[in-house]
Amino acid sequence: MKKQNKLFFLIIFICTIYVHGLFAQNTNNNATWIWYPGDYEIWLNNEMQARRTERGAFFPPLWRYYSPYSLVTFTKDFNLAKPDVVNIKVEGQAKVQLDGQMYYGALENMEIPSGKHTITIKVYNQKGVPTLFVEGNNLVSDSSWLVTYEDKEWIDESGLASGVSGTEWEQVGSWNFNSVTALPSEYKLETTPWYVQNQETYKNGFVADFGKETFGYIKLHGLKGVGSVTVYYGESMEEAKSEQFCETLDRVQVTENTDSEYVIESSKAFRYVNVQTEGEVKLDSVSMLYEYLPLDYKGSFKCSDEQLNKIWDVSAYTMHLTTREFFIDGIKRDRWVWSGDAYQSYLMNYYLFFDNPSVKRTMYALRGKEPVNTHINTIMDYSLYWFLGVYDYYKFSGDKEFVKQIYPRMKTLMDFCLKRRNTNGMMEGLTGDWVFIDWADGLSKQGEVSFEQLLLARSLETMALCAKINEDIENEKFYKTEAGTLKKKIFEQFWSKDKGAFLHNSVHDTTEDKVTRYTNMFAIFFNYLSEEKKEAVKTNVLLNDNVQQITTPYMRFYELEALCQLGEQKYVLNEIRNYWGGMLQLGATSFWEKYDPNEKGEKQLAMYGRPYGKSLCHAWGASPVYLFGKYYLGVQPLTPGYETYKIEPVLGGLQWMEGTVPTPYGNISIYTTTKEIKVSAKGGIGTLLFKSVRKPSVTNGTIEKIGHQQYQLTIQPNTNYRIKYKAVE
Amino acid sequence: MKKQNKLFFLIIFICTIYVHGLFAQNTNNNATWIWYPGDYEIWLNNEMQARRTERGAFFPPLWRYYSPYSLVTFTKDFNLAKPDVVNIKVEGQAKVQLDGQMYYGALENMEIPSGKHTITIKVYNQKGVPTLFVEGNNLVSDSSWLVTYEDKEWIDESGLASGVSGTEWEQVGSWNFNSVTALPSEYKLETTPWYVQNQETYKNGFVADFGKETFGYIKLHGLKGVGSVTVYYGESMEEAKSEQFCETLDRVQVTENTDSEYVIESSKAFRYVNVQTEGEVKLDSVSMLYEYLPLDYKGSFKCSDEQLNKIWDVSAYTMHLTTREFFIDGIKRDRWVWSGDAYQSYLMNYYLFFDNPSVKRTMYALRGKEPVNTHINTIMDYSLYWFLGVYDYYKFSGDKEFVKQIYPRMKTLMDFCLKRRNTNGMMEGLTGDWVFIDWADGLSKQGEVSFEQLLLARSLETMALCAKINEDIENEKFYKTEAGTLKKKIFEQFWSKDKGAFLHNSVHDTTEDKVTRYTNMFAIFFNYLSEEKKEAVKTNVLLNDNVQQITTPYMRFYELEALCQLGEQKYVLNEIRNYWGGMLQLGATSFWEKYDPNEKGEKQLAMYGRPYGKSLCHAWGASPVYLFGKYYLGVQPLTPGYETYKIEPVLGGLQWMEGTVPTPYGNISIYTTTKEIKVSAKGGIGTLLFKSVRKPSVTNGTIEKIGHQQYQLTIQPNTNYRIKYKAVE
Repeated sequence: MKKQNKLFFLIIFICTIYVHGLFAQNTNNNATWIWYPGDYEIWLNNEMQARRTERGAFFPPLWRYYSPYSLVTFTKDFNLAKPDVVNIKVEGQAKVQLDGQMYYGALENMEIPSGKHTITIKVYNQKGVPTLFVEGNNLVSDSSWLVTYEDKEWIDESGLASGVSGTEWEQVGSWNFNSVTALPSEYKLETTPWYVQNQETYKNGFVADFGKETFGYIKLHGLKGVGSVTVYYGESMEEAKSEQFCETLDRVQVTENTDSEYVIESSKAFRYVNVQTEGEVKLDSVSMLYEYLPLDYKGSFKCSDEQLNKIWDVSAYTMHLTTREFFIDGIKRDRWVWSGDAYQSYLMNYYLFFDNPSVKRTMYALRGKEPVNTHINTIMDYSLYWFLGVYDYYKFSGDKEFVKQIYPRMKTLMDFCLKRRNTNGMMEGLTGDWVFIDWADGLSKQGEVSFEQLLLARSLETMALCAKINEDIENEKFYKTEAGTLKKKIFEQFWSKDKGAFLHNSVHDTTEDKVTRYTNMFAIFFNYLSEEKKEAVKTNVLLNDNVQQITTPYMRFYELEALCQLGEQKYVLNEIRNYWGGMLQLGATSFWEKYDPNEKGEKQLAMYGRPYGKSLCHAWGASPVYLFGKYYLGVQPLTPGYETYKIEPVLGGLQWMEGTVPTPYGNISIYTTTKEIKVSAKGGIGTLLFKSVRKPSVTNGTIEKIGHQQYQLTIQPNTNYRIKYKAVE
Repeated sequence: MKKQNKLFFLIIFICTIYVHGLFAQNTNNNATWIWYPGDYEIWLNNEMQARRTERGAFFPPLWRYYSPYSLVTFTKDFNLAKPDVVNIKVEGQAKVQLDGQMYYGALENMEIPSGKHTITIKVYNQKGVPTLFVEGNNLVSDSSWLVTYEDKEWIDESGLASGVSGTEWEQVGSWNFNSVTALPSEYKLETTPWYVQNQETYKNGFVADFGKETFGYIKLHGLKGVGSVTVYYGESMEEAKSEQFCETLDRVQVTENTDSEYVIESSKAFRYVNVQTEGEVKLDSVSMLYEYLPLDYKGSFKCSDEQLNKIWDVSAYTMHLTTREFFIDGIKRDRWVWSGDAYQSYLMNYYLFFDNPSVKRTMYALRGKEPVNTHINTIMDYSLYWFLGVYDYYKFSGDKEFVKQIYPRMKTLMDFCLKRRNTNGMMEGLTGDWVFIDWADGLSKQGEVSFEQLLLARSLETMALCAKINEDIENEKFYKTEAGTLKKKIFEQFWSKDKGAFLHNSVHDTTEDKVTRYTNMFAIFFNYLSEEKKEAVKTNVLLNDNVQQITTPYMRFYELEALCQLGEQKYVLNEIRNYWGGMLQLGATSFWEKYDPNEKGEKQLAMYGRPYGKSLCHAWGASPVYLFGKYYLGVQPLTPGYETYKIEPVLGGLQWMEGTVPTPYGNISIYTTTKEIKVSAKGGIGTLLFKSVRKPSVTNGTIEKIGHQQYQLTIQPNTNYRIKYKAVE
C-alpha cells in the first residue's frame, strides 16, 4: 500500500466519524413515552377489567383496585456536545426545571445550551397517568430516565440533607409508544374486519356464525327504520339462541339519526350472534372488527399426527385470543387478570410469542402498589404464583432490570405473606383469603394445605434469587433460611411413607390421611424430590386412578408437565389426544375453562350454576403449546435468558416432528425423525441431548457419549447441525 | 268532653299519623352525594394545589400526592314499610346488587319491594372520584351508608369465611352536595362581581386598584382588535408594575373570535393589576369576579379601641380569603395546604366561622392515605401539628364520629413517627425530613430539638385520647405510657435550672446552652409547667428581649397566646397594636406572611430572595380573631363540643368590649365594661369567671365567690345575665 492510499483511508475514516457524529445528533428516533413504573399498567388494567359486562350490566372485578400516582417527577442527567432544541409533551400539566432553575418558556422548542445538565419535569394528571415524551436531537425520553412520586426537590433551608426520603429514584416505565402522537391514554388494540360464514333467519332477525371463536366489535349493516336491535352473543349456537341465559348481549337504540352502518361500542367474545329487532327497524347483516394484540407467532410445532397439529393450532389461537392488553383468563366472561391463570400464560408465551412486555405489564398490573393488605385476586395461591412468575421471567428472559425494578414490590408482598403464617410457620386461609387450588369437588381448603406451603417455599427461593440480583445480601440469607426451614417442615409433616406421597392438609395439628395430586406434581417440577420419591409419586399418585381426577385444563397443565418430567411423553401424548382431542370432537375452536369427558350435550356449556356460564376460550386451556415446546421439542434455558440452554427432543411415539422455540437471541429450530435430528440456533450455547441405539454422526461439532445410549452435542449459534442416529423406541 | 269529641280526636290523630306517614314517604330530601371518606377531599386538594402558577408556569406542590380509590363499594341495610322507587346516579359506572342478586335494570326508577333489604353498589371512576347519589321516597344516600375499597363480596366456594379482609366497612364521606345535579366533580367556589376603585393609564395600558386585597378572576371589558393582553398581578402597586418580578401574570391571546368581554380562566390574588397590551388590541377596563367560600361570620369583636377593631376586621377578612376549598397558607403564591398553617386556621375558625366541614376536609387532605412514608408536607413538625388539630377539633366540636373515622389514619401516621425515633426515644430530622419550626435566622434544626419532642408528647396524648374514644384500650395505655416517658425525658434533658427555661436542642448527646422561645411557650399552653416554672419562663424567655425575637405572625400567634395564658392580656394588646397596627400603617388590607418593623420600604415586600416573594395575605397573619375570642372575650370549651365551657372576659385595659363566640349550640354573646358584664348563650353549661373589687350582683342565678376578688356564675342556656361589678384594674 502506498502512502497516498494511507492518507486517503485516514480521510475516509475521519469523515466517517464526522458523519456518524452528525447521525447521532440528528436521528435520535428512540424517544418513547415514559411513566412511573407500573402506573400505566395499573391504569390500563383497571380500564380493561372494567369492560366486563353480564347481560348488559357493568361488572367490574371484586378485588381492590390500585391507583396511579397523579403527580410524579422525571429527571435525567445528560451532556450535550452542542446545543439542542427539545419538544416536551405530557399527558397532564408540566413544570420544567433545567439545572434546578424554573423554566418559564413554552414546552415546544425549548433551547438547551451545550454542556452538562440536569432536567427535571414534574407532571400532574389526575384524570389518568402522568406521562412524558421528550424529543430533541440528543435529549430524548427513554428508559434511562428516572422518576419518583416523592419529594426529592425541596431544599431544606435548615441545611439538613434534603430531597431523598423513602425510596431512591426509580427507573421509568415504558412500552412501545414511540411517537409523540401515540398517546398512552389512547391505546387501543388493533382491529381488522372479519365476516360471517353463515347466516340464517331466526325469529325476528337472524343468527350468524363467524366460523370460529372470535373477539371484537359487531358491526350492523343496512340499518333502516326506528327501533331497537339486540345482539345476543354465543360461544355456542345454543347460547346465542338463548335470549334468556346468554352471558352477554348488547342493545342498540336505532333512531332516525343512526347511520346505516353501526359499530357496537364494546367488544365481546363469541362465535355466533343472534340478532333480534324490535319496532320498525330492519338490518341486512352483521360483520365484525376482530380485535387483537399484534404478536408474532415465533414458536411453532408440526408433527406426524394431524390431530396433535390441530391441537397445537387451536391452543396457539386460544393463547392469542387471551393475550390482550394483559394475559386474561377467558374472553367471554371475566376478561380479568388472574394471577394463577396468568402464570400459565407466561409459560405458554415463552414457547409461542416470547413477548416480554406482555409478561411485565401483567406482573405490574397484578401486583399493584403499597400497602399490601389482601392477596392478589384475594387468592392465597395467586399471590404465590406471582413470585413464581418472576422466577420464570428471569429464567427465560434474563432481564435483570425488571427484577431490580419489581424487587421492592416483591418484598412487600412477601412481608404480607410471611406475617400471615401461623405459629407453625405455615400459611392457612385467614378471614378474607380465598384458598383456591383448583375447581374440584370436595377439595378441602382447611388448615395447613400442603400445596400452599410448597408454593410458599418456592416463592421464598425466588425471593432469595432476586435478593441476590439486587445485592441485598442480608435478605438473600433470610429468604434462603426461611425456604430451607419450610421445605424441611413440609417433608416432615406431609410426606407419608405409607402412601409414598404428600398428604393434602393438616387441620388442628392432625394431618389428614388424604392424597391429592397438587402437591405431588408440583414437587416434581420444583425438583424437590429424590429419584426414589419421584417414582413413588408417579406410581402412587399420577398414574393412580384412585386419586381424585383433575377435570380442569388448569391443573391438567401441571399434571402433564410432571409426567413429562418423569419421561412419560408417550403417555402424555395420549392424554392430550383424549382430553384436548375430546374438546375438538365436540366442535371446539378454542380450548375451554373446564372439560369433563363424562358430561353430555349442553351440560358441557354450563358452569357456576348457569347454563352457558362456562368459558369456551380460556387461557389455561392452551397448555399444549407449552408442553410441545418444552417437553417434545425439548427446549429450555439452563441459565437466565438462554445464555445456555438444552434441547432434548422426545418424539413420544411420533414419526417426526419439527418446530421452533423462541429465545432472546432468536428462534431455535428443530426437526426430528427416529433417524435424524436437525438443529440450529441464533445465539446462546446449547446442549443437545438425545438417545440412540447406535453411534450417531453429525455434520458439525463432536458428539459426546454421556451414558448408555445417551449422547450430547454442543450447539453453537448460527450453525446447522444434522445428526444421524437411531432413536430408542 | 263528650264521647263524640273523643272520636273526633281519634280520627284526627289517625289522620295525622297517615299524613305523617305520607310525608315521610314523599319528602325525604336529605339525600346527599357520598364517597369513600377522604377521597373526594384528596382529589379536590390535588386539583386546588395544582392551580399555583409562577409567572405563568405551572407549579404544583413538591410533596407527594395521594390518589382516590377508583373502585369502591357502597352498602346499606334498610327496611321498607312499603315499596320504594329509587333513582341511582353515580359519577362513573355502577353495578347494583339487591340482597346479593345482580340487578340488570336501569338505574332510574329502580323498584324495590317492601321489607328488609341490603343494597350494594359498586362504583368505578378512574377519571375522578367514584361518588354515589341515591334518592327514593325512603332510601336515600346519606352518612349512614357504609363503603369499602376492598373485596367484601366474593363468596369463597371453599366455605372459608369470605369477604372481610383487612379493614371493616367504613362510614362514607359527604359534604353538602345535596341534590342530584350538584356533582361533586363540578364543585366550584362561589363568585360575585367586584369593581375597580381607581384606574390610571400606565405605559401601553393601565393600572387598576381594587381597593383592597382580593382573589378572583379578572374580566376584561371592551376588547377590540387582535393582539395579546398581559395582566400583571400585584398585592402591592410596586409588584403589579414590576413586569419582570411580579409573582403572577396571565397572558390572553385576543383574536377576531374573542368576545369583547373575557374572563381569565384562572383565579389569582391581588389588589392591583397592571394591564398591558401588545399588537392592535385595545380594551376599556377590567373588573373581577371575587371568588370565595360562602361562610357566616359567627364570631365578632368590637371594643373601645378603633385600631383593634380594624385589626380584628382585617384579620377576619384575611382568614376568609385563605379559607377556601381548604385552609391554605397564602392566596398569592403557594395556595397550598400546609399542616402547620392549617393548624392555626382551625383555631381561628373556631372563633370566627366554626365551620367543621372546612376542618375535616383539610385534615383528610393533609393526611392522605396509606402507606405513610414521608412527613406531612415533608415537615416533621407538620405531622405533629396534624395530631394536635384532631385534639382541638374534638375539643371544640365534640364530633366523635370524625375521630372514629380518622383514627386508623392517626395510628399509621403515629407508627411512622414512632419508628423514626432515635435510641433515646426522640425524633431527629432524618434524611428527607424538613425540621421547620419557624422562619428565623440561625435557628438550629440539628439533633434532638426540644420543640419537636414537645409536639410529639402532645401528639401521643392526643392518640391516647382518641384511642379511648375508639375503645382501643390496649393502645390507649401504650400511647399514655409513651407520652409520660417522653415528657419526663424532655424535662430531664432540656429544662435548665440555671436559665429557668427549656434549652433548644441536643446534638451528639450534648444539650446546647441556648434558649429559644418555641419550646417554652408551647409548654405553657400545653399546661406542662408548674406555676413556678411558668413564671420563670415568662420572665426569662417571653419578656426577655435578649432571647431571639420572633418576626413571623406564625410564631407570634403562639407567643401571644402563651402570654395571654399567663394573664398578660394588657401587654399583649400593646403588642398587637404595634405588630398588626404596624402592618395597617403600611397600608395592609390583609395580614402578611412576615412582618419585621425594622424593615423599610419595598424590603417589606421581599422574601425568599425575590422582591415580591412575600405573601401579603397569609392565614397565619389572622391570629387576633383567635386571641380576642379566646383570651379577651375569654370563651373556651371545658368539655368537648362546649357541653361545658368557661367565659373569663379580660378587658386588658379596654374600656369596653363586646362580641360573639360560636359554639355547636349557637353563639355566646358577651358585653363587658369595667362595671358591667352581659352574657347569654344558646346551649351548654357555662361558667363565667371574673374579678371584682366589690361584691357583684346579677339579674339571674347566683354568683359564687371562689377566691380573693374572684367570682363565678353558672350560665344556663337561653338566659340573659347582667352582672354589676367593679373590674380590678
